[in-house]
Amino acid sequence: MPRRITRYSGSVATSSEDLLVAESPVEFRLHGVPVAVLMRTPGNDEELGLGFAITEGIVIGPHEVDSVTLIAGSNEGDRYAINLAEGITVDPEQFARNFFTSSSCGVCGKASIDAVRIAARIMKPGPHLDPAVISGLPETMYRSQFEFAESGSTHAAAAFTTSGELVALFEDIGRHNAIDKLVGHLARRNWPLERHIFFVSGRVSFEMVQKAAVAGIPAIGGISGASDLAVELGEELKMTVFGFVRDDSFNVYCGDDRFA
Amino acid sequence: MPRRITRYSGSVATSSEDLLVAESPVEFRLHGVPVAVLMRTPGNDEELGLGFAITEGIVIGPHEVDSVTLIAGSNEGDRYAINLAEGITVDPEQFARNFFTSSSCGVCGKASIDAVRIAARIMKPGPHLDPAVISGLPETMYRSQFEFAESGSTHAAAAFTTSGELVALFEDIGRHNAIDKLVGHLARRNWPLERHIFFVSGRVSFEMVQKAAVAGIPAIGGISGASDLAVELGEELKMTVFGFVRDDSFNVYCGDDRFA
Repeated sequence: MPRRITRYSGSVATSSEDLLVAESPVEFRLHGVPVAVLMRTPGNDEELGLGFAITEGIVIGPHEVDSVTLIAGSNEGDRYAINLAEGITVDPEQFARNFFTSSSCGVCGKASIDAVRIAARIMKPGPHLDPAVISGLPETMYRSQFEFAESGSTHAAAAFTTSGELVALFEDIGRHNAIDKLVGHLARRNWPLERHIFFVSGRVSFEMVQKAAVAGIPAIGGISGASDLAVELGEELKMTVFGFVRDDSFNVYCGDDRFA
Repeated sequence: MPRRITRYSGSVATSSEDLLVAESPVEFRLHGVPVAVLMRTPGNDEELGLGFAITEGIVIGPHEVDSVTLIAGSNEGDRYAINLAEGITVDPEQFARNFFTSSSCGVCGKASIDAVRIAARIMKPGPHLDPAVISGLPETMYRSQFEFAESGSTHAAAAFTTSGELVALFEDIGRHNAIDKLVGHLARRNWPLERHIFFVSGRVSFEMVQKAAVAGIPAIGGISGASDLAVELGEELKMTVFGFVRDDSFNVYCGDDRFA
């Protein structure tokens, strides 16, 4: 969004126009009951709703969601219904209580600490990963970060093939939203995702690995590092977690066997 | 946390030791009822609980919280009670339903979109801000980011005086936690905060401005930019929101009158 700002250079103030990243709340409903309010960058809200439903374990796969549709009368596209496929029923109260969430919120609403590790499965061996491909991910991603180029304030999440081709990329003020939009997009085109790599513009936290795991992604990495719990979860699920991909070098925190 | 990793440089793999930022869930309870589960970097959990209670509007100020104490029998310091001052009562169910939250989650659980703008008050004029002081904040902050220096994967939130002295700084895997720890710390030492500036290591989102506003901070900025909704809220509340503080220059998105 364009906005008139004051720019200081030293103590000299000049008025100029700047582009701000857009952020606004969106509500998702299940059987008419609000199950999540997310602060997100508007756009690709259907993908966001579908991806959120998958990565938070509301459904077990894309086939359980018929559609995500704007609720009539909603203001500025800010209320959507997640419509489940015929025969699928979910108790919305279970999620209304647990899944209130935010722009950069992935583990929201697990009512007890013991429930944090949900809906994640152990990955099968493979695919094989090539260090040269990993080293090339930041450059390929950066070339497609159009919103970041404008505002400097968005996170990106991208899916790549094991040969380094960009499959899809989403940007959002919230990094978990970027992942959910990516999963929601891929869910209708590239499912299952067991041959894909996820790459994010920042750090790799527990919730990012959890979302990737629930979506069936065997490898996830970022420009920055990973947290201890993220690596612990990745190791448990036999995922590859990598980070600090910079200047031809990177760290592999777990799942190094995919590079063998 | 130290961890053995594999480091690739080109296609050459070497085994080395790395320091990962710690991340684990913590639960806060009010009258015995869980009101929040946050993914945070362990440490300063009492400050986190107090700050969270303040910035999320559970209490209206530090005086309403008697203490934040570890619950006996909890594992690794992961369950705390927020003990309210004598005579203060809050319905925990209201917050249990609304405030489940995450490592980087601030607007979690507002059950309706209309409820997002909560507990925020219009700021009084002042204090006067000096561009030279603002330009110096990143350097001062960076010198105190000890965890970032180790892991490269934490967010920082710092409080400064208007003459640029660092009052306190907290680091966390979650940026909202860093702000909450900061507020919780200041709550017992520097309340009210109307003469302070908050500065964060990343972007300035809606929830960051909301938390600063509820804590009574008149000015907040970051190394990166601000979102449109963050600026809209700041403008409504007559706060100063600034960003992209780099190389002697920065942007003021609203509240430029404090520099006059």
